[in-house]
Amino acid sequence: MTSQDNASAPKPAAKDPWDLPDVSGLVVGVLGGTGDQGRGLAYRLARAGQKVIIGSRAAERAETAAAELGLGIEGAENAECARRSDVVIVAVPWDGHAKTLEALRSELAGKLVVDCVNPLGFDKKGAYALKPAEGSAAEQAAALLPESRVTAAFHHLSAVLLQDESIEEIDTDVMVLGEDRADTDLVQALAGRIPGMRGVFSGRLRNAHQVESLVANLISVNRRYKAHAGLRVTDV
Amino acid sequence: MTSQDNASAPKPAAKDPWDLPDVSGLVVGVLGGTGDQGRGLAYRLARAGQKVIIGSRAAERAETAAAELGLGIEGAENAECARRSDVVIVAVPWDGHAKTLEALRSELAGKLVVDCVNPLGFDKKGAYALKPAEGSAAEQAAALLPESRVTAAFHHLSAVLLQDESIEEIDTDVMVLGEDRADTDLVQALAGRIPGMRGVFSGRLRNAHQVESLVANLISVNRRYKAHAGLRVTDV
Repeated sequence: MTSQDNASAPKPAAKDPWDLPDVSGLVVGVLGGTGDQGRGLAYRLARAGQKVIIGSRAAERAETAAAELGLGIEGAENAECARRSDVVIVAVPWDGHAKTLEALRSELAGKLVVDCVNPLGFDKKGAYALKPAEGSAAEQAAALLPESRVTAAFHHLSAVLLQDESIEEIDTDVMVLGEDRADTDLVQALAGRIPGMRGVFSGRLRNAHQVESLVANLISVNRRYKAHAGLRVTDV
Repeated sequence: MTSQDNASAPKPAAKDPWDLPDVSGLVVGVLGGTGDQGRGLAYRLARAGQKVIIGSRAAERAETAAAELGLGIEGAENAECARRSDVVIVAVPWDGHAKTLEALRSELAGKLVVDCVNPLGFDKKGAYALKPAEGSAAEQAAALLPESRVTAAFHHLSAVLLQDESIEEIDTDVMVLGEDRADTDLVQALAGRIPGMRGVFSGRLRNAHQVESLVANLISVNRRYKAHAGLRVTDV
């Protein structure tokens, strides 16, 4: 859809939902990049050719993880990671989520933030959903980062599969949520760089809670079937 | 796993999760069977060879719907539908959910109840999750039906695809939730009777809310991609 279409037609034809931007030149930061999920995402994105910076509270730990992963990945303290990145994936543990983001408000201003945190509790019956006061981790991020563009994605990935170098393709769709189409398109494009993975627009942030907490169900699936479950959206 | 295994070994080998019971002889009732979702499920189950009774508040409406669907489907008032069925699928609208189940407590005693209701609200921005006081529609059913065996399943199906006679296979997994393995196995087996469909155990009822409300996300997917989206669980 060109701007001309917009000007000439009262109701322009719907944009092709698979017409996604080129994101190959963007720098991706991963806060919490020394944890399993963050490491796995950093590895897959770098392997796909993306420039990746791992962030951690301690620069040294980030640098160690980056050196282990190779692929041109760099490590930095969280604030520097945020400053140097165009897109910042938030992969910190839920209990450090609010504090980490609050401290990075100015560094994350103007950035595209991708929250992939799953607020879960665990007891002897397994995992269960925690409901943040803001509705979801992503909505908490949006509340804490008013000058950032906040999206949610990358929830349903197996950190084990992401980190397994012998696996070529990650056979999973990534549900991408957000308020602004340009932002969700960009995150979808980023997901699509990883072989086998596909970013599928899946609604606004107010519907992020169920996407985040569905990880509790995937944990039950994994236990029953001894699997590393993910999701595919059918008919799309 | 036989009872002998239980007696002889302190930790018996895990039962094959795909070793599911034969459910071909069970009578399946569908409360709310005149609505789109209920009709679609009744049609698919009957087409797969299951004996199906559609329930409605008005016997006549149920009989009309049953006659339209054919395949030996019968129609009855809700109470008779529940009494005559072994397995009762609850496919009523959310706003009639509690009242319908309360009125059928005695008829549903001892029955296997399968709740497939999605508590959603709608406004100009689309669909959003409603959070029942009990946690989920399924947990509300369990609270209202203390003498029934309550499970949750069949949330992510497209009523359009279910009802389209030209479609042979329903390319979707069915997440099945419940407290008792014998019950969830039975529901999985029922889902598996429909070609293309597969029942996947996906946790306890306390994790039903996110499965129910994920339908809000699928509605966003459908709008963006002009699709009838469903879900597949990968690596299972």
